[in-house]
Amino acid sequence: MSQKFSEALRDEIAPLWMRMLNTRIYRALMSDDPVGKELLAIYLVESYHYAKHNAQHQALAVWRAELTNRDFMREALRHAIEEVDHDQLALRDLEKMGYLRAAVERSVPLPETQGFTGFLYHWVTRENPVGRLGYSLWAEGTQEIGPGIVSRLKEKFGIKDNKEISFFAAHAVLDMRHGQEARDNIDRFAVTPDDRQAVRTVATTTLKLFIHVLEAMYDHYEDVKQGAPLIRSPLPA
Amino acid sequence: MSQKFSEALRDEIAPLWMRMLNTRIYRALMSDDPVGKELLAIYLVESYHYAKHNAQHQALAVWRAELTNRDFMREALRHAIEEVDHDQLALRDLEKMGYLRAAVERSVPLPETQGFTGFLYHWVTRENPVGRLGYSLWAEGTQEIGPGIVSRLKEKFGIKDNKEISFFAAHAVLDMRHGQEARDNIDRFAVTPDDRQAVRTVATTTLKLFIHVLEAMYDHYEDVKQGAPLIRSPLPA
Amino acid sequence: MSQKFSEALRDEIAPLWMRMLNTRIYRALMSDDPVGKELLAIYLVESYHYAKHNAQHQALAVWRAELTNRDFMREALRHAIEEVDHDQLALRDLEKMGYLRAAVERSVPLPETQGFTGFLYHWVTRENPVGRLGYSLWAEGTQEIGPGIVSRLKEKFGIKDNKEISFFAAHAVLDMRHGQEARDNIDRFAVTPDDRQAVRTVATTTLKLFIHVLEAMYDHYEDVKQGAPLIRSPLPA
Amino acid sequence: MSQKFSEALRDEIAPLWMRMLNTRIYRALMSDDPVGKELLAIYLVESYHYAKHNAQHQALAVWRAELTNRDFMREALRHAIEEVDHDQLALRDLEKMGYLRAAVERSVPLPETQGFTGFLYHWVTRENPVGRLGYSLWAEGTQEIGPGIVSRLKEKFGIKDNKEISFFAAHAVLDMRHGQEARDNIDRFAVTPDDRQAVRTVATTTLKLFIHVLEAMYDHYEDVKQGAPLIRSPLPA
Repeated sequence: MSQKFSEALRDEIAPLWMRMLNTRIYRALMSDDPVGKELLAIYLVESYHYAKHNAQHQALAVWRAELTNRDFMREALRHAIEEVDHDQLALRDLEKMGYLRAAVERSVPLPETQGFTGFLYHWVTRENPVGRLGYSLWAEGTQEIGPGIVSRLKEKFGIKDNKEISFFAAHAVLDMRHGQEARDNIDRFAVTPDDRQAVRTVATTTLKLFIHVLEAMYDHYEDVKQGAPLIRSPLPA
Repeated sequence: MSQKFSEALRDEIAPLWMRMLNTRIYRALMSDDPVGKELLAIYLVESYHYAKHNAQHQALAVWRAELTNRDFMREALRHAIEEVDHDQLALRDLEKMGYLRAAVERSVPLPETQGFTGFLYHWVTRENPVGRLGYSLWAEGTQEIGPGIVSRLKEKFGIKDNKEISFFAAHAVLDMRHGQEARDNIDRFAVTPDDRQAVRTVATTTLKLFIHVLEAMYDHYEDVKQGAPLIRSPLPA
Repeated sequence: MSQKFSEALRDEIAPLWMRMLNTRIYRALMSDDPVGKELLAIYLVESYHYAKHNAQHQALAVWRAELTNRDFMREALRHAIEEVDHDQLALRDLEKMGYLRAAVERSVPLPETQGFTGFLYHWVTRENPVGRLGYSLWAEGTQEIGPGIVSRLKEKFGIKDNKEISFFAAHAVLDMRHGQEARDNIDRFAVTPDDRQAVRTVATTTLKLFIHVLEAMYDHYEDVKQGAPLIRSPLPA
Repeated sequence: MSQKFSEALRDEIAPLWMRMLNTRIYRALMSDDPVGKELLAIYLVESYHYAKHNAQHQALAVWRAELTNRDFMREALRHAIEEVDHDQLALRDLEKMGYLRAAVERSVPLPETQGFTGFLYHWVTRENPVGRLGYSLWAEGTQEIGPGIVSRLKEKFGIKDNKEISFFAAHAVLDMRHGQEARDNIDRFAVTPDDRQAVRTVATTTLKLFIHVLEAMYDHYEDVKQGAPLIRSPLPA
């Protein structure tokens, strides 16, 4: 069969990808129905919390003692450098919406966000770091929909400038390139059955866990509408 | 206020605990409605997959470089030794139900199970290991319901001997002791605001993530009823 | 050939063991020549610094993701618990000699002591944790000489009570048992060629590195006699 | 006082640096006295063994959970990428001298080399990763002597082309830039007392441990002259 592994895997996760687009939060943000800007803020707060780890667990893909593939190593580190500071875009957008940077930084992520992050650290440091490419497969493969999301959000919330929605805008641009890169890297570095199973596990697991993150965001939005604080603070010292 | 922190926290997570008991799988297993024994098998397969890590991430609670509390260290290691091999009970029960040990061992856990495990490794090795006590707070605090679950499952599935349901039976016994131990350890070792916040985060996060595991088990049960294989195999090599 | 691997390895490291006994510090402590009690203090300070890690890197022998040998795991954790607080004996002996506990705790170990400790952490977390048994092979195999050392030190420095020399006295007792245990564990757990090579590498490497620690202690003693402070402080804040 | 911390530290380690240049191996390689080319081979074998880890433990400087300095992170990763494959130069030079690449790759490093490597992994993953700059301070600060070493080695061993001595030649070039970079990074990133103490500890410790590596190389050279195999093989399987 001539289909590449990366393409077969993209097909395999397509149903989960559709389920992701069908979560309450994406439907609310994309539809014509009115929705509170708090939902966008919640999305950005949690995005800050998981994105701040992306560079770090990407860099830790070199943890494995027996690492011998130098091209993989270089690629992981190069990609890690690119990921540094993406979380800052979310912080900046939130600041423009009136949320204090320091409050967001010390807020407690939703449990689902913590599970998502924990899984990625666990996988690269204790399982097979090559698998992390499965996360990039879907997370950076949004070029088809990224630009549409940006337009929609601007229109919906009366946002004039891409700079006020920089987290989404930057990804829409970057992911034009990253999506193909991710697939190329999968076909280049995931060659053993063990590596391929690792990529597959990470692709399906992170996508499924991210759907839980998205649903938890919406649950939190409903709590916020009932009066719960949007920024989840730690216990008072 | 004289309420102990461990008790205040137990109260705080009570609503999540009730939601756990109200998941489709617990209702199906506890109610009078007929249900396929596959549901019990699925529960045990995933339990094997998360329980096999319990001793290891408990032992890794000594990872932190600046560890100076020797009593905490001893307690973590002592508890870790107790947890070794609990997963084997699940494997043995599954064997008695006709599932091959080797097939279960090499099966792929549900994504939610992997997120649950990943979070715990992540927390003890990269965040605050004292927080892991928050997992014990609810996971080993089932003394009120453990014995009832064992009776119910035996009755429901026509199981004669506790040895065929050893995973549940052993926990029902152990947890009589562990529940109080967990609360005592929390009040003994979680004394700084940072430690307490860590325990709280782990308690709510692991309980929430475990609810997702339970719901995913039931989703998988429904897939199995539609013909999906109960044991999820890795990609063929 | 019927010789056990543990015994063949003990024979292989015998020349290094003899070199250890022939270091300037052991000769100075064991001979009839007068020597300053500072030398004993330096020995105890560095012993504190390496011994405080023994329980921790023993516990971290369970780090390896693919750990499946539960007996090895239990044994590592059981041994780790036994090692907790051995460093406190060195601190206590130093206190009786007039060195403040807090000053010793925050002192900077000799470079060689740091290399010794670093190698052990590195090996158990990144290489093959079974190899750590090679450290126990010689470090806890001193039953032949332990009691003699205690008598000699008491006589030489006019120490009346074993309680004032508890670090040495405790090891002399414990090691009667631990030496045989270490050899038994090597023959029980180091069965693959990779495991045996790991045990051999750790045995020879740690013994060689410890000889450097011993020589560095004596170098430091000579500096102290020239006026250098015995307790090496960190930079002032 | 207006002296920069990096300069004060360079002055502090100057005596150790002089001791390094005064080791038997450097004296033998730099003097007019004849010496076997085996000594150069031994130097390159051990250099391969420690250099192959340089990129990895540099990358792992991002391990620390609480990492918030993004500039430090980017700089560590950028430097790590530069270090990838430097070990290959040593392998290539050895190949030109007739030593099989595969044999060198699977050879057992000298104990001192393992201690040196272990300390660096230990420090970045368990202590303070900023400290690793102290290693760069002296290891990449050889611009004053690098070119002289290359000329001397070519002359001494009748080497015509820099390509046959690429490990040294590449460092001589790179270190023209890296030495100043290391000092700049120290003054930029080591600003707290804890960070500065970490840099100081790593600078003095790695330099001292490297002197032991150099002396062990010469000891091994003497063994080789007595008939010991230059390439230290693992136990036969």
